[in-house]
Amino acid sequence: MSEFLLLRRVPAARLQRVTIQESSPFPQDAAQAGIQDSRALAAMHSRRNTFRTWDLPREAMSKIPREWRIQTGLTQQVPGDLAPFVEWFNKQPEARERFRWALRDSLDELLDGQRTGRWAYQHLTKTEKTYLGTAVEVNLTKEFDIANGEDLDWSIAGLDIDCKFSKDLGGWEIPMEMYLCADHGKRGGHTNHAAVVTWMNDDTSEWAAGIVRITDERLRWKKELDANGDRVRAYNRDNKRKLSDRAKSEVYWLWGGLQTDLPTNLLRHLDPEARERILTASLPRRPSSGQQRLNQLFREVQDRIVGRQTVLTVGQQDDSPKRARGAREHLRPEGIVVLGHQGSHPHAARALELPVPIKGEWISTRLVPVSRDDARPKFSLDGQFWARACGNEPTNPAPDLPDSRKIDGPMD
Amino acid sequence: MSEFLLLRRVPAARLQRVTIQESSPFPQDAAQAGIQDSRALAAMHSRRNTFRTWDLPREAMSKIPREWRIQTGLTQQVPGDLAPFVEWFNKQPEARERFRWALRDSLDELLDGQRTGRWAYQHLTKTEKTYLGTAVEVNLTKEFDIANGEDLDWSIAGLDIDCKFSKDLGGWEIPMEMYLCADHGKRGGHTNHAAVVTWMNDDTSEWAAGIVRITDERLRWKKELDANGDRVRAYNRDNKRKLSDRAKSEVYWLWGGLQTDLPTNLLRHLDPEARERILTASLPRRPSSGQQRLNQLFREVQDRIVGRQTVLTVGQQDDSPKRARGAREHLRPEGIVVLGHQGSHPHAARALELPVPIKGEWISTRLVPVSRDDARPKFSLDGQFWARACGNEPTNPAPDLPDSRKIDGPMD
Repeated sequence: MSEFLLLRRVPAARLQRVTIQESSPFPQDAAQAGIQDSRALAAMHSRRNTFRTWDLPREAMSKIPREWRIQTGLTQQVPGDLAPFVEWFNKQPEARERFRWALRDSLDELLDGQRTGRWAYQHLTKTEKTYLGTAVEVNLTKEFDIANGEDLDWSIAGLDIDCKFSKDLGGWEIPMEMYLCADHGKRGGHTNHAAVVTWMNDDTSEWAAGIVRITDERLRWKKELDANGDRVRAYNRDNKRKLSDRAKSEVYWLWGGLQTDLPTNLLRHLDPEARERILTASLPRRPSSGQQRLNQLFREVQDRIVGRQTVLTVGQQDDSPKRARGAREHLRPEGIVVLGHQGSHPHAARALELPVPIKGEWISTRLVPVSRDDARPKFSLDGQFWARACGNEPTNPAPDLPDSRKIDGPMD
Repeated sequence: MSEFLLLRRVPAARLQRVTIQESSPFPQDAAQAGIQDSRALAAMHSRRNTFRTWDLPREAMSKIPREWRIQTGLTQQVPGDLAPFVEWFNKQPEARERFRWALRDSLDELLDGQRTGRWAYQHLTKTEKTYLGTAVEVNLTKEFDIANGEDLDWSIAGLDIDCKFSKDLGGWEIPMEMYLCADHGKRGGHTNHAAVVTWMNDDTSEWAAGIVRITDERLRWKKELDANGDRVRAYNRDNKRKLSDRAKSEVYWLWGGLQTDLPTNLLRHLDPEARERILTASLPRRPSSGQQRLNQLFREVQDRIVGRQTVLTVGQQDDSPKRARGAREHLRPEGIVVLGHQGSHPHAARALELPVPIKGEWISTRLVPVSRDDARPKFSLDGQFWARACGNEPTNPAPDLPDSRKIDGPMD
């Protein structure tokens, strides 16, 4: 142990909370203490990072009016005026994959599980919910590197188009500047613009994206006529209107309509008792700890991909991915391996016929030693074969899989 | 090296990009490949995490109309109706510290430097800029654990109050539901509500927070009267109105008015050439790397706190804090120590009379060996004294400061 000696005493008040004196109108604080750019004083009292748990929501995230129900696998004609947009999306590599992850990430960013522990849309505040549409637009813009439009959010294939999100299918709110209307004068749009309309429902892992040309006729009108017998436009408080129910048939749905594979919100869809065991995991007579919660996560959730977001939410601390690696050591005596993206891990996942994790993904599984002629998918390490355990096969400590990149003799 | 052998060949297509067949109306993808919850396919094409650099903005972040200029150190009478709110803020421990960090964090979250490399408000898209107010409200709500109001955002001291942010001093937009107005009928508020009005300018590190009771009179009216000679309310497109210039004197400013210590946006305020050297740092004939950029950061920015946000933005990768620790090894031969929050580091910082980093903060400084009777603040390690280098003292490799928690004989 090195000898370490401090030679100057520093006033003890330097980092302590300074008492506010009645005689001073303004509190002493970090600026006066010379640590203006340190979070030290704020961090002592911040409630932003307190660990807490959340309940399973009782109300649904999405409304799906009967008139707006859509099917999977639709084959629609592409309307000529929408063809440039549809072709553009079709040309983007893995567009559907990137679209569904942009939706997933938008909700996850708002949930901010690492700091808040939240894992469902319904845990958001009213104000945060209103921002989900913006987050979706921002992430799609980045994901597909879409340029700004002249008048609208985006320019796609050289044409202006807006991006609209609603958690309710058919609930998109269309502002005046998107369409021509004799009555709006200068406040209206230059032309009838197109919109990308998107929707997701994390309760059912469904989502959809469509393209529609907005017109005055395709938006809502009130049921009652005015005193002169004329139709009246149905505006909300912000002078926006929703699509009329009949306009549904004018929407061209990308990728055949209803999509059923929003990346799974693992904690949201977990068995409630398993979720409870994970989120309250602790050592005997100790408060819940991030490491114990992550150990329990990889005990309860086996043979499927666990993403970074789930790990951050369960850990609720800055270095949760490190704790995921820690779980590897803790679970080995129980026969469980936690495979990541490095070294022999992807090879092992592939050999076991499990999904293969990439960076920021993990998959755990329980292994048992098997004989060379065992029929299961297996791999060998130092002459011993290993396969995934079936049901009640007895526990056997799992092998320490090399996570350096050098492996002898992988056959793939 | 262990022997590692895979016994089952897995179809090679499993993780490769699947070609979209003309005959199939919908692309094969992750769902079909059995890796629905892996980001593998999306990650191959995502443009969201590409490293890029940004220019110093030419336009200002904030407008400060002459009528809304405010001073520091004001001593105002607290209006009786606002006293419960003011007292509540005064009762919160370190409220001013937590308020300024909530503002800082709100802008930093939107900048999302880790993923985008952005370091100035002006780098945000139009849509993101509109969200800054929401982010501020969300963070203040979490920071002070404020309950929802009956009609408005917040309930403070049992009373409804709204939170309004504007990047322009005096630019807050007030909706109808906040005040009484004979002309609004049902669309108006139940009463004249109070608002917390907040502002920040990252160009000048200034900010302010005030409390004001909203009334119809205190909001803007048009200069021109209508045909009947009546005054006309000045609404924007969303039926919101700003405070009139005269209403400025009705605002009670928390903490004495203008605050000049928004936590420094380090990259924004750095010498442009130093910033350029940091953000383009690379090994000879190699592309810029996160490790090289962080090494350069701690070379250029010495003797002041470097926060997590700066490290994430400079690193632009998931494990930037690890690279900050890596910089420690790289810079030791140059005599530079990078002090963190663990082990002997805070003690060393205190002994050297530097600000003391907490978790997620670092401070670098160049050390030289000195004699026992050197007058500078110093510490000793294994019998050698060390102090901060003055100007051109010759380079000497820095000591390896123990970062375990066990240290012999710190005197504080």
